Amino acid sequence: MDENRLATLEKRVAALEDEIAIARLMASYGPSVDSLSADLAAALWADDGDYDAGTWAGMAPGTTGVFHGSDAVREMVATEPHQGFVRSGCAHVVSAPRITVDGDTAVAVCYAQLLRRDEATDSYRVWRITANRWEWTRTPAGWKVANRTNRPLDGSEAARDLFRAALR
Amino acid sequence: MDENRLATLEKRVAALEDEIAIARLMASYGPSVDSLSADLAAALWADDGDYDAGTWAGMAPGTTGVFHGSDAVREMVATEPHQGFVRSGCAHVVSAPRITVDGDTAVAVCYAQLLRRDEATDSYRVWRITANRWEWTRTPAGWKVANRTNRPLDGSEAARDLFRAALR
Amino acid sequence: MDENRLATLEKRVAALEDEIAIARLMASYGPSVDSLSADLAAALWADDGDYDAGTWAGMAPGTTGVFHGSDAVREMVATEPHQGFVRSGCAHVVSAPRITVDGDTAVAVCYAQLLRRDEATDSYRVWRITANRWEWTRTPAGWKVANRTNRPLDGSEAARDLFRAALR
Repeated sequence: MDENRLATLEKRVAALEDEIAIARLMASYGPSVDSLSADLAAALWADDGDYDAGTWAGMAPGTTGVFHGSDAVREMVATEPHQGFVRSGCAHVVSAPRITVDGDTAVAVCYAQLLRRDEATDSYRVWRITANRWEWTRTPAGWKVANRTNRPLDGSEAARDLFRAALR
Repeated sequence: MDENRLATLEKRVAALEDEIAIARLMASYGPSVDSLSADLAAALWADDGDYDAGTWAGMAPGTTGVFHGSDAVREMVATEPHQGFVRSGCAHVVSAPRITVDGDTAVAVCYAQLLRRDEATDSYRVWRITANRWEWTRTPAGWKVANRTNRPLDGSEAARDLFRAALR
Repeated sequence: MDENRLATLEKRVAALEDEIAIARLMASYGPSVDSLSADLAAALWADDGDYDAGTWAGMAPGTTGVFHGSDAVREMVATEPHQGFVRSGCAHVVSAPRITVDGDTAVAVCYAQLLRRDEATDSYRVWRITANRWEWTRTPAGWKVANRTNRPLDGSEAARDLFRAALR
């Protein structure tokens, strides 16, 4: 019986560790990109993980907000428009997530805000806020992002669809 | 002795599980209401749980921000003004909470922000920010909200009283 | 073997408890200062713990944002400009942190926002947002802040340096 109790406890503790590990990684995203730590940001993703950051106002023609693979995430941090945002003052704040672990995969739901310094008002504008779905996969190097998708909460149906599917 | 150690560990793990389960439910509130998932939002509450959302500018005459029972929470999500907020773009962001579990009840303290899309400035306004106290109760269907109270952080004493009582 | 498994589990559970205890304390900071609970805010710090809050617009000449010891944190909450911020409506929101525990010390990385009520627009301005590093120490009275440092995310290098060092 003690063997059963021990084994059960080990599983319960492992489940807690998984959830806390993923929350910790999600809390690393903002500080990584806002400090231009491109390698750290990229390391959150699996090599072939995707980041679909959605669309935003002023997007350069011909570009998309979709980044395929951790190398593309690294490149995103190392180039415009991200570098300009950081130079003029910004913060990428990821909200406390709702994480659901299922074996070697997990889904997290949260908000991400991009705040940008606004000299005119001596304060920060919440320039974007998106609905987020992060899909995680367990790898030999720990949990990695297999897919992150953001949809702007601008009244369009896409953000609601994202939340609904992730909450299911 | 091992029996004692096992039993102690089981209690400690259960305490961690309770705290993480409640944090996870609190992180579900925003995505539920912002995706108009009225049933999911209602299911966070006990059948007879209350939600006192406080007051806000532009409240319809004769209405209050008090909702009695999970059915009233569902109705709140399914009607105005909530539907209008969502159609024009909004986000209900609940901050990382301070949770205190005591047996089969728990109290959580946090902030809740309501951000609304502002086309004029191509950004979001933080329209409301409230001090929150969430009282939780353990039920056969998991932790449920027995009472949630918000008070606007607009300089009035009510928000300070709420925080003080909850921190005690 | 069971003895080894038990001892290993006890260590894993203690590590989770440490991380959750620190997150809970960090979620207590805002509600403490926004309710003018100066003693509670001070009690988060070790007696000789420091708080370097950085600089801000409109700082009184001859003052710094550096507070040495928990008594100085208590004094900060009990005096201007903090009291004025609270009277006119404000919220100090600490984001979900990334916590790294190492024995009897820990480092947490997060954002802190100071939102202030803006009557003119019937909303709140994000007046400040800072990169935060919190250094924690284990004491007989629980985890206490040994050092907290904020740097404004206004485009200057200091915030990036803070994040980079803390993420290492």
